[in-house]
Formats: sequence, C-alpha cells, structure tokens
Amino acid sequence: METRLKVHFCLSLGPGDDARQIAQGIALEQTAELPLDQVPDILLTQVVGRIEQINDVDENRAHAVISYSLDTTGGEAAQLLNLLFGNISMKRGFLITQIEGLDGVFPGPSFGIDGMRKLTEVHQGALVCTALKPMGRTSDEFATMAFDLACGGMDIIKDDHGLANQRYAPFAERVPKVQQAVIRANDTTNRHALYAPNFMPPITRFERDYELCLSQGIKIVMVCPWLVGWDMMAEIARRGDFAVLAHPSLAGGMFSAPDHGMTAGVVLGQLFRSLGADASIYPNVGGRFVFDTHTCHAINAALREPYGAYKPSFPVPAGGMTLDRIGEMSREYGDDLIHLIGGGLMRAATDLRSAAALFRRAVRGA
Amino acid sequence: METRLKVHFCLSLGPGDDARQIAQGIALEQTAELPLDQVPDILLTQVVGRIEQINDVDENRAHAVISYSLDTTGGEAAQLLNLLFGNISMKRGFLITQIEGLDGVFPGPSFGIDGMRKLTEVHQGALVCTALKPMGRTSDEFATMAFDLACGGMDIIKDDHGLANQRYAPFAERVPKVQQAVIRANDTTNRHALYAPNFMPPITRFERDYELCLSQGIKIVMVCPWLVGWDMMAEIARRGDFAVLAHPSLAGGMFSAPDHGMTAGVVLGQLFRSLGADASIYPNVGGRFVFDTHTCHAINAALREPYGAYKPSFPVPAGGMTLDRIGEMSREYGDDLIHLIGGGLMRAATDLRSAAALFRRAVRGA
Repeated sequence: METRLKVHFCLSLGPGDDARQIAQGIALEQTAELPLDQVPDILLTQVVGRIEQINDVDENRAHAVISYSLDTTGGEAAQLLNLLFGNISMKRGFLITQIEGLDGVFPGPSFGIDGMRKLTEVHQGALVCTALKPMGRTSDEFATMAFDLACGGMDIIKDDHGLANQRYAPFAERVPKVQQAVIRANDTTNRHALYAPNFMPPITRFERDYELCLSQGIKIVMVCPWLVGWDMMAEIARRGDFAVLAHPSLAGGMFSAPDHGMTAGVVLGQLFRSLGADASIYPNVGGRFVFDTHTCHAINAALREPYGAYKPSFPVPAGGMTLDRIGEMSREYGDDLIHLIGGGLMRAATDLRSAAALFRRAVRGA
Repeated sequence: METRLKVHFCLSLGPGDDARQIAQGIALEQTAELPLDQVPDILLTQVVGRIEQINDVDENRAHAVISYSLDTTGGEAAQLLNLLFGNISMKRGFLITQIEGLDGVFPGPSFGIDGMRKLTEVHQGALVCTALKPMGRTSDEFATMAFDLACGGMDIIKDDHGLANQRYAPFAERVPKVQQAVIRANDTTNRHALYAPNFMPPITRFERDYELCLSQGIKIVMVCPWLVGWDMMAEIARRGDFAVLAHPSLAGGMFSAPDHGMTAGVVLGQLFRSLGADASIYPNVGGRFVFDTHTCHAINAALREPYGAYKPSFPVPAGGMTLDRIGEMSREYGDDLIHLIGGGLMRAATDLRSAAALFRRAVRGA
C-alpha cells in the first residue's frame, strides 16, 4: 500500500460549518488550488489531499486527518512546509496537531541522542550546555569565555543565536578562535566539550562556512530553520558531518493563536526532528516565555518517542533557566535531556569556570 | 548622526504592566539576551536596542519605538528577521506595526514598478497575471496552457506556488518548455508576456537552477521567502538578473493573532520590498482568505509609497479573484497594480485564450 503523509487537524467550527467541507477545502487549497469541479479526475486521486477521517470533537471543533501523496512534496523541505501549511497559514481556525509519515520524506537526525552522547562521551545523565553572549563582544573575548566554560565542565558551548557575521565577531574569525580555545581546554581537562557555532550563512556563503567548520574540527552546529530556510537544516543533516542543534527563532508565529497554526510539538518536535535536528531548543515552562507544561511534554515526546526509523533527538528546554530548576527538570523530563542555562549561569558564581562546574555538578553530580 | 533601524511596536498591557519595562525587555531579548545588569556599559549603548519613544495608546496598549544599530543586523537577511522578531515571536502581546530604516540594510527592489513595466512593455494601466495549475499536470500540458494564455494577452504567467520539482513536471524540464511556449506566443502576438517560474530550489541547486533560468531568457521568478529562507530572495534581488514576484506562503502565522506578530503591511509590504520584491502577492479582501480592506490598503501603501531610496513595488491582490471584481479593484487600488486571477480565470470562458483575452480587456480595455 502507498505510504502517505497524514496530517491531523483540529478544525474550529462556526455555526453551520460543515467539517468535511472545510477539510475538503484544505485538501484542495494545499495541492491543486482549484475548486473541486475544475480538477481532472486523475489528479483528484493522485494529487489532491484525501480526507482519511473526520470526527466531531465537540460543538465547535472537529478532528480531521488529511493525507497527501509523498510525491506532492517532491522530497524537498520547502515544498513540504508549503504543502503542510503554506496558503492555509493565511486562513483561520486550522491547527495541525500531528503529522504521520514524515519518515517517508526525510531521513531525520543523523546522530540522534546516542550519536551525541558519543560525540561528548557523556554516556549517562543529562548534558549541560550554555551560550556565548552577548552580541558585541569580540572573538577573543568569546574564546576566553569558551575556554573557561569548557574547563568548568560544559558539554556544549553554543553561540548565542544573535551571533551571525557582525563586525564585532565575524564568523570566519570567531569560529577558529573559539574552537581552538575549546580544544585547548579539552587537552587540559581530558574531556570532550563541543563548540556549536551559530550557522546562519547567506546561501552564497553556505559552502565556505561549512568547509570552515569542517576544517576546524567542529562537530555540531546550531541552525535556525525559520531564518535560514528549511532546506539548509535538512542539507546539513543529510551530509552527516555535524550534529544539528535546532533553534526556534521566529517560529512563534505558528503558535501565537490557540486555534490556528501548528502546535509547538509539531514544529519544534516532529518537523525539526524530521528535518534533521539531533537536539531541539525550546522555551521551557516557567522561564521568560509562555509555554505550559503540557506543551513542553509534547515537544519532548515528539523528539524522543519512536517515529518510524528516526533516531530520537535531545530536548533542550531553555529560555531563562537557572540552577535551582535543575532538580525539578530532571525529575519531570528524565536524563535524555540537554540542560541549557545562558544568562542565569553568569549569576551562579563570580567566575565562569566555577559557575560551569556548579551547573555540571547540579546535573550529573560530578 | 548614526542611522538606526526603528521598529514600531503596539504593546498589549495587562493590569500593572509598565510599558517602558516591557519595551526594555524586548530591546534586551533581541540583542544581548541578558538581564540589564549583566550587560557591559559599552554594549548597552552599542548593541542593545534603544527605546526612542513610549506613548500610552489606551488603558490596554502602548506604542513603543525601539531602535537598533544597523551593525546588529550584520547586513544579512536571516539576522535582520532574527533581530526584529526571532525570540520574541515566542512571547505574547508584541505587534510590529512599522519599520523605519530598512533602506540602510538592504537595497530593495532592483526593477520596481517602472522596471517591470519596461520588461512587459505595459506602460499604462494595470498588468494581468495568471497561474499555471494544478500540480500534477505535465510540463507539456503547462507549456500548452502557457502558450494559450500568452496568446490571449496575459502579461505574466506564473507557476502555481505548489510547483516545485515534483516528478509530474520537474523544474529543469518545465522551465524550458513553458518558456519556449511563451516565446513562441510572443512571436505570434508581438507582445511581451513573461513566464515566472516558482523558484524554490534546495540550496545546493540554487546556482544550477539560477543558471537554467538565465540561459532560458527568464526575466522574472516567483519566490516564497518563508519557505526558501530570507536570504535567497535578497540574493536574487542583489544580482538583478530577474524581477522578483514574492509569494506569502507560510507567512500567515505572523498575522494569526490580532495582538502579536508583525502586521501584513510590515511582512508582505515593508519587509518583502526591502528584501527585493518587485511585486508582492497577497490575499485580497473578499477572496478565499481573511484580510480586510484596511490591511490590503496598508500593504499597497507599504509597497508603493516613498521609502528611502527604494523603488516602488507592484501590489498583487489575489486569492480567489474573479473578473467581476476588476472594476472595483481598479477604482480602489489604482493602476499601479497586477491583477492576478488563477482558478477563476478558467471559469471565465470555455478556452484559456478567450478567458485571458476577456481578463486583459476587463483590466486595460484592449
């Protein structure tokens, strides 16, 4: 039997609305973009989305499953997003709550949780990660910070997502300096801290920046798919040279309205994983952002639970975390987790090395 | 005096909220991503956003203007979006209503309205445009459609935005066939119809697909910046070989919530124009989508009114338009406009050539 992409919607219904008719409208809008009577019969079965299921949830909502032929994605990331929610993003009352069959389109994470544990040689317990900030510091200053943080015991030291190629610390200068600092620290500690540069090149600099990272021995990069385009993340995952730490910048529009968009579990969980995220950063409940506990658990599940042949990915709850949250987060979320504390770490001790050591001990006891 | 990017926000206020404090939070979140007391003084003035203005609008809303140094964008499209709304997309109650100073970062449209009039040799009156659809047809079928539409008098024949590189009509096959058909039609009619392929390549195919379009004499391409990444559109505009027809696919999340995001005027008007759109497609009031008249006028204004040294761009109101709307749209929106009718055109007559001729006559009288 043909494998199809199955997209689950929660449809908001107004008085007199017919759920099947609404679902049929979505299936047409996202494919043929024509009224039903103008679509040739053969394309109706081959190309137009098919309604697999319709259930009323209550008076105001229905659950619909629309399936699409994998051919309609062309195997490309941009067209996948286009098919899922392109034009209908500009309508109202359609919420994607789950997607089945993504593993028929994209291979998913190339490292996954096990692969990242091998890279960092952390075989038990959660990982610890922090960010180089603020924008405005020089490459040398970031290198010094990274050295101290690696000496203190961080597993992953990532760029802040605002570090692009500004004159303060240009990419081609920052990456070698910070990476060399982390390598020097690893030589001292006999540990395996990784530096994750923020990989946000214009398309014409993609290969050059990629080669730079390769030549420097970088093992993991951070990618913001909403900013650089969906295919850039998928391409990095496809090549398999770097683990991918996905960042949600600009994604929030998709979950601003309660009844329209794609849930955070779908975007930061299922989609990010399918397009190759080995780890997905999200704003944890109780931080500077607005996610609730249910949303965070949904993202974790979408990243870690079995999904076709996909490797599981690390959840990275973040966005204003502090050392005193670690116990609760470990109990709630388990050990297959990356703890990310940025600004909060700098308050934990008078110097970065001690702060990093405190953080590591709080998470792994040593 | 230093030119800065000035971002206007409408802030939603809850009981006891202090607008200045909220604005300060945005200015920090989008740059240093640290609490105020952790930011070195020199970076506070150089890097952190500056509050230029705060006014209460009413009990529940304030108007804030936050300015950023142009250096913080690094001159790159992805980082511009990151700076404007990256992390705060995941908060609530922040709406960007206007941006000043984009012309300090990007050069804007390379053709603009005058340039596109030269390309099509339509020096007076609005232009007429239609779409090749549905997905599932072969390249030969699209070529035949395009020939008939060009003979009937279309100025621009664009791919449907769902046509990517699917096996039904692969890009490298479709573009030459359709373009040759349009050239043959132009030889017959002595007119200058343009074919606008949907340019949605994975990054590793960018140069090849670009060269293909160049070699075929393509003069205009359609780009979906939310799908392919912001830099791809900016890069095409920078090179100046093709006019850019921007498509809003997936943009809708930004305007799903009334009080959080960026207005459609900002996204589909100011931002698309600054990143090089010579024409911007949007879902017109009264079609299949949900924009109101005010929003449509705001987009038109953002595209056509003076903005620094930017050339004006064509508004392209679309999304379920029909021939009987043309009179009203012409009166409301004026002549510096591209009328786009897709599916509705196929109902206008029994054959495409006659339908196209009717459409052209309805818009330009000949």
